[in-house]
Amino acid sequence: MKQTLNIIKIGGNVLDNPVDLHAFIQYFAALRGPRILVHGGGKTATTMAHKLGIPQNMVDGRRITDAATLDTAVMVYAGLINKKLVAGLQAADCNAIGLCGADANLIRARKRAPGHVDYGLVGDIERQDIDAEAIGHLLSLGFCPVFSAITHNGSGQLLNTNADTIASVLALAMSEFRPVNLSFCFEAPGVLAGAESLEVLPRLSRTDFERMKQNGTVSGGMIPKLEAAFSAAIADCVNVNITCFSALGTPGHPNSGTLIIP
Amino acid sequence: MKQTLNIIKIGGNVLDNPVDLHAFIQYFAALRGPRILVHGGGKTATTMAHKLGIPQNMVDGRRITDAATLDTAVMVYAGLINKKLVAGLQAADCNAIGLCGADANLIRARKRAPGHVDYGLVGDIERQDIDAEAIGHLLSLGFCPVFSAITHNGSGQLLNTNADTIASVLALAMSEFRPVNLSFCFEAPGVLAGAESLEVLPRLSRTDFERMKQNGTVSGGMIPKLEAAFSAAIADCVNVNITCFSALGTPGHPNSGTLIIP
Repeated sequence: MKQTLNIIKIGGNVLDNPVDLHAFIQYFAALRGPRILVHGGGKTATTMAHKLGIPQNMVDGRRITDAATLDTAVMVYAGLINKKLVAGLQAADCNAIGLCGADANLIRARKRAPGHVDYGLVGDIERQDIDAEAIGHLLSLGFCPVFSAITHNGSGQLLNTNADTIASVLALAMSEFRPVNLSFCFEAPGVLAGAESLEVLPRLSRTDFERMKQNGTVSGGMIPKLEAAFSAAIADCVNVNITCFSALGTPGHPNSGTLIIP
Repeated sequence: MKQTLNIIKIGGNVLDNPVDLHAFIQYFAALRGPRILVHGGGKTATTMAHKLGIPQNMVDGRRITDAATLDTAVMVYAGLINKKLVAGLQAADCNAIGLCGADANLIRARKRAPGHVDYGLVGDIERQDIDAEAIGHLLSLGFCPVFSAITHNGSGQLLNTNADTIASVLALAMSEFRPVNLSFCFEAPGVLAGAESLEVLPRLSRTDFERMKQNGTVSGGMIPKLEAAFSAAIADCVNVNITCFSALGTPGHPNSGTLIIP
């Protein structure tokens, strides 16, 4: 049986907070065994677009990625955030290698077909879009891949892709070769029982999730995050939890926070 | 005898010209055998710093890299330019992997000690700062490393490093394992016999170079570029030339333009 692969998705608010980010880097670097980090963007891309005078078009709370917005995302996600994470991890003795989906053709995407909204240069991915074998080679060399949420279409076009989706699809693809723990880490301790509640649900089933969506207990950005989590949890070899980044510092982190039950 | 490794440094003016850049990508992708690309930044970083309102301090024509200027360089070099090159190369069937020196700890640098000028967050490198073995592993996997001119100090600090120097030091380090052709490619056909001349020198010796520096035939940015070229040419297994990017499209490119004779 191969060693379990830890795939950690780290959320934007942790990236935006220097103290949390430093703590996260130490926790992540101290993990044992093969691991992959997937990171979102935080507020830096929006701030940068604002400074550069690039208007941000939002529809239903989601950003439309035009060419200038994509360039900003590539600069901030694949450049600034990715390389700062890598340099920080290297300083903490983790042999990180920063990548986007175009690198070594590891994650190939398709531009989302315009529906009632055209989201622009956004890429959708499925399990077969991941080159799990090549990622396995990088892990065998002792490298820790750090993925920014930028992919490409194989014809020269970079694409913006949801980081939660990348983490989920990576977990599915890698689970063909070894067991995977997928942790969506953020600043909260897990999925809360209600909007005003401090109680963390230890487990969340699909049925509970559907009910919570209907009664509004979960809303906004938690919905696509949980959809991504459930997509990965259907695989036999994938354990999925939603947890606080600080839980990485304690043994048994794959069972902390909220476990996702398919 | 191992296959010859082609290391190509591509200059900023080619990156700034979409037609030249597209042609360069096709030429580079069509090269046979193992290869590494090192790229500079072009004018995009300066334009971006200007748009972001970051003042650029120059001393003797060289930029002082403060923290904000470094962030811009990381965004533009390691982000935008690097990933666009990688996506373009992938579309042309070259299995490019975009890297900076922090990635997999491949190029570790030391912050330049302040002399009569403090250049700020600038990194100096030597042959032993390159992990030639790890780069060899990436080449063995069939990947083509594409390096931006960003390094790190191993303690979490990214550093701006001259791209010509990176190409030169990479050539020296990799030549311990196999023969290397190092080509500094730009928009001109080679080193010209004089400032007003169209004649390309087929060969340039150190003695010729010293004479041309003294009489002003070479000046400005050509001087550090040629210093980098001569540093690599001293190794027995390294062939160095300065040539036009379009020469990559013709067989025998390692002997085109100006050959550097140590």
